[in-house]
Amino acid sequence: MIPGIDDTHNPARTSWVPGAEGHPDFPVQNLPLGIFSTPGGPRRAGVAIGDSVLDLPLIAALLPRAAAACLSTPTLNALFALPAADRVALRRRLSELLSDESHRAAVEPALLPVASCTLHLPCAIGDYTDFYVGIHHANNIGRQFRPDNPLLPNYKWVPIGYHGRASSVQPSGVPVVRPNGQRKAPDADAPAFGPSARLDYELELGVWVGRGNDLGTPIPIGEAGEHVAGFCLLNDWSARDFQAWEYQPLGPFLAKNFHTSVSPWVVTAEAMAPFRVAQPPRPEGDPHPLPYLWDEADQARGALSIELEVQLETAAMREAGLPPVTLSRGSATNMYWTVAQIVTHHASNGCNLAPGDLLGTGTLSAPEREGFGSLMEITRGGAEPLSLPTGETRRFLEDGDTLTLRGTARADGRVPIGLGACTATILPARA
Amino acid sequence: MIPGIDDTHNPARTSWVPGAEGHPDFPVQNLPLGIFSTPGGPRRAGVAIGDSVLDLPLIAALLPRAAAACLSTPTLNALFALPAADRVALRRRLSELLSDESHRAAVEPALLPVASCTLHLPCAIGDYTDFYVGIHHANNIGRQFRPDNPLLPNYKWVPIGYHGRASSVQPSGVPVVRPNGQRKAPDADAPAFGPSARLDYELELGVWVGRGNDLGTPIPIGEAGEHVAGFCLLNDWSARDFQAWEYQPLGPFLAKNFHTSVSPWVVTAEAMAPFRVAQPPRPEGDPHPLPYLWDEADQARGALSIELEVQLETAAMREAGLPPVTLSRGSATNMYWTVAQIVTHHASNGCNLAPGDLLGTGTLSAPEREGFGSLMEITRGGAEPLSLPTGETRRFLEDGDTLTLRGTARADGRVPIGLGACTATILPARA
Repeated sequence: MIPGIDDTHNPARTSWVPGAEGHPDFPVQNLPLGIFSTPGGPRRAGVAIGDSVLDLPLIAALLPRAAAACLSTPTLNALFALPAADRVALRRRLSELLSDESHRAAVEPALLPVASCTLHLPCAIGDYTDFYVGIHHANNIGRQFRPDNPLLPNYKWVPIGYHGRASSVQPSGVPVVRPNGQRKAPDADAPAFGPSARLDYELELGVWVGRGNDLGTPIPIGEAGEHVAGFCLLNDWSARDFQAWEYQPLGPFLAKNFHTSVSPWVVTAEAMAPFRVAQPPRPEGDPHPLPYLWDEADQARGALSIELEVQLETAAMREAGLPPVTLSRGSATNMYWTVAQIVTHHASNGCNLAPGDLLGTGTLSAPEREGFGSLMEITRGGAEPLSLPTGETRRFLEDGDTLTLRGTARADGRVPIGLGACTATILPARA
Repeated sequence: MIPGIDDTHNPARTSWVPGAEGHPDFPVQNLPLGIFSTPGGPRRAGVAIGDSVLDLPLIAALLPRAAAACLSTPTLNALFALPAADRVALRRRLSELLSDESHRAAVEPALLPVASCTLHLPCAIGDYTDFYVGIHHANNIGRQFRPDNPLLPNYKWVPIGYHGRASSVQPSGVPVVRPNGQRKAPDADAPAFGPSARLDYELELGVWVGRGNDLGTPIPIGEAGEHVAGFCLLNDWSARDFQAWEYQPLGPFLAKNFHTSVSPWVVTAEAMAPFRVAQPPRPEGDPHPLPYLWDEADQARGALSIELEVQLETAAMREAGLPPVTLSRGSATNMYWTVAQIVTHHASNGCNLAPGDLLGTGTLSAPEREGFGSLMEITRGGAEPLSLPTGETRRFLEDGDTLTLRGTARADGRVPIGLGACTATILPARA
């Protein structure tokens, strides 16, 4: 079941919180959940509203009982384990508390400036799985390896995915240390070990799993929506040189598992309801998905109308006071499989998902260069370097570069809501 | 640093616990750690001795303080996070308590028959990584796909590994539900979804990570031994039909993540000290490993002299009262890379390992058919079915089959110690 639209999404609804109205990411129609701390304080659950964070344990007495009972832990896992109806009840109550002036006196003392908070991972991630559903990315990358046959025969049947590393998923802001590793130049006799010379980003959407399933019990596609708690931005940092050398036959490993960044706020499935659109029809001639992956309601509302943007700021740009440059603009509708299809496929063999698990969509590239989601695509593997306003060029990321992902859900007649920034700066490799 | 041999390994040492002496797996020279419960009781730490389990929280007052402080949780993660020296101190004290008759009165009340205990996973597994260091297995499988070129060019340079699914790792005894999934017959136009027709096992050694490392901080090979808490048996159940269809380009996913079995007892790195032998020299012409993977001390003592055995019992054999048949006998010395090389490679890019993480070695096949570690190898992909004493044949596993892995460490002049059984029965697929 996909969440519906209710009065919490009403564009006429405003908040008494200063700065919430017109906020690019966090108006009262969003109400994303996260985990934050203040100096000397514990990690605890919060809600982003404008440039403030609402300290949920402080107002637990005002919240629905099921959700309030989950606020004694430093993660959102327990909250995500609740039935979706409890998350809906929490959202309605939060919307009321933050909209209705009559609650201001009780709630305002629990608001903190976000600048005074440290944002953490929202969940203890049990397992992190990365998919590959950005078909234009798969095409672009495949073409660099196999010009005549970029997509493998399974791509249009199987939502391709693989397991990533949960321990190295980090919240936005944690710097990325350039990894060391093995890479082999095509003309070299032997590989060498050292810092990656082809460090790249990948623009992805992250999906936070809500309610889990028992081992051996699949999730029917009609129920997949109930297992999705919310969304974030995800940067699947990639060392392309390590990847090319190590990935056969068992897939990417050290090329990816040194760091994955996520935006810290979980934009709930409920908040995203007005931004669901029809899944784009498959191109003529593509196979019809197998029955376990097919649901008419999912096709009608399974895609997400989220605009995605990637910005780069180099150290030289920072010094010169130049603004970041936009590397790409794309859309989350460039997914060949829906989120429900990903979830159902993942559990189709009985694999057990758990609350707080993280799924990545894979790189979401648009068909055209302006919307490519990685430097590997934008510079065609480094063959066509980017020119920057400082006179610098980039084939891949350099030390000191700051990369920022942004995403904004938009729909006619709706107040846009944002995912918040997913950003990190590259630090030099350690000796 | 690799642990040394001390008086806890003395073959003259005996235990006052009835049944410990001469026990094939758990004499007083072993002292493996695990997590168990009794009906109505909490999960708690125990030690296997003979056919008994020593309830550690019950004797916490008799144990070294650092270890005793870790016994209030239902997992061994905290214990594994301690410096190896604390694990050594625990081992010495346990050996004393269980050998010296003077401690019997204080300790005996904390002994439970293992038959009255349920054994659980020893750790909350943060991440599970599976490697591919059984070179004969890699050769055998590679030959089925690429007869002239079974090993890919990276194999002798890179300890190949990939991330597996932590949530579906189960202790020995939990039945395996035959998974459903997509598979495509070579001559079919389209894939079909249904129960795996090529369900297989993989004989592996499991490595439990002890002390972790910080993100961005590699583990030098000379220190890798300090990060290994102990060993178990691991069965990497595999649906070969799903695997063949899904694995390109990102590696195995649903073919593996429906279930992984481990033996429940952790045979500590300390217990294994007398069974460490020189890593077999690389065949003439193989490249020398890169410096970050090379350590003379590791080469001298980095291999494990563990005999491995796989047994199959079908439902018909059980009904007829026939004993299980042995499918293979091999050795853990058939690893192309040592455990230290695996650990160091894994962290070489800064990837952070954590206490309680699980590493699989990959299938450990011997060079000859009698020691092949999977049915895929034994029956050559199903082309040469096995004949069983009941008149049955097996190309792959059938519903009702019980598969058991065993491992025994042996060395001249030493009391052999076992890893305990890793067993599971195949249940039919769910509709």
